[in-house]
Amino acid sequence: MNKKEAHFNTQDFQAWDRRFRANFFNSIGGYKSINLLTTKSKSGQYNLAPFFSVQHIGANPPLMSLIFRPHTVERHSLENFRESGKATVNAVHSAILEAAHQSSAKYPREVSEFEACGLHPLERGFGVPYLKEARLSFGIRHQSEHPIELNDTILLIASIEEVYLESDSLLEDGLIEHSRLDSLTVNGLDTYYQPQPYKRLSYAKPNSKLEEKKWPKRE
Amino acid sequence: MNKKEAHFNTQDFQAWDRRFRANFFNSIGGYKSINLLTTKSKSGQYNLAPFFSVQHIGANPPLMSLIFRPHTVERHSLENFRESGKATVNAVHSAILEAAHQSSAKYPREVSEFEACGLHPLERGFGVPYLKEARLSFGIRHQSEHPIELNDTILLIASIEEVYLESDSLLEDGLIEHSRLDSLTVNGLDTYYQPQPYKRLSYAKPNSKLEEKKWPKRE
Repeated sequence: MNKKEAHFNTQDFQAWDRRFRANFFNSIGGYKSINLLTTKSKSGQYNLAPFFSVQHIGANPPLMSLIFRPHTVERHSLENFRESGKATVNAVHSAILEAAHQSSAKYPREVSEFEACGLHPLERGFGVPYLKEARLSFGIRHQSEHPIELNDTILLIASIEEVYLESDSLLEDGLIEHSRLDSLTVNGLDTYYQPQPYKRLSYAKPNSKLEEKKWPKRE
Repeated sequence: MNKKEAHFNTQDFQAWDRRFRANFFNSIGGYKSINLLTTKSKSGQYNLAPFFSVQHIGANPPLMSLIFRPHTVERHSLENFRESGKATVNAVHSAILEAAHQSSAKYPREVSEFEACGLHPLERGFGVPYLKEARLSFGIRHQSEHPIELNDTILLIASIEEVYLESDSLLEDGLIEHSRLDSLTVNGLDTYYQPQPYKRLSYAKPNSKLEEKKWPKRE
């Protein structure tokens, strides 16, 4: 590092104000994805909540994970997901960013975040609604839960059952090119960025020079 | 959706070519962070490997997670991490992107990816080296492992012990503003993006209008 540098250790972490610490550790790992999770309660109530923790676990079978903090507002999503075994994941793009962010507010259980935030459910025969405004959505099934005892969170593993997306975002080699969907990325809890295509690199091998792969043009 | 739409289900997933499926499911969740993990073997050999799975788990205590696929090249990192109990996480910025990508090549265990990729270890008394070229780094300690039986991967939980970063990337409210570090984001396995600041939004409350927070200017 050439610039002025800061160094912090566990004593500093403990001395910090709660909000400062939350911002710091929510941003330290780097950029995250932004998705809206929809679930449905036993009584048929729709629920919508933003997640920054959708993560790739495997491609065959297709698995992803989500982190739940059972003592926060996400509890409704978790209860519904456990009961019905199903949920949908919907990528957040710039036109629905404010609505997606607003859906993190602590609404009472009887309020549907869809209505409160001006978004719309779309039933497609999966049993749980999709987000009508989404440009990429997928239906998932609850597979397993892994409690993280250290801070009372849960890693939930789900399988991907079906996918809807705008055709022109899917490249020939299988990549879903998120800039074509105007998907955003988030840093910390509230700071959103628009990613610009930078580089595609060839598969790395020892003693072999990397090549820049062609970045496909938009039709 | 107004544009032409595609729909895929589990039968499609199984019919796809292996590479297509890998690209598809590695990109479906959205943008990911890019970090280099360094470890040190019993015999003192340094190891370096890219991870797209560094994830925030909690702020108090500060915890993050990593996904390991024990049957791939990441095995060396996992073995070292288990043995010494320590590793460091180093954010990838554009000037070291090619070197970071190259470090994913399957080098034999006796080769240090630092040397092979033109990067440099920096000993700072943590017991495991940092990446000299990094602009944000943190030292972590192994806490627990959670096997995901469905596809034989491991979620590893680590605590954050100390942090080094360029001072001017740290905002007053605790946010580490990654565009000041030129950190990149990745989609799929090989497709890199440069995020541009878009919006900071106020804390969401029911029946209260969101406000755009000021985006701090660079000095």
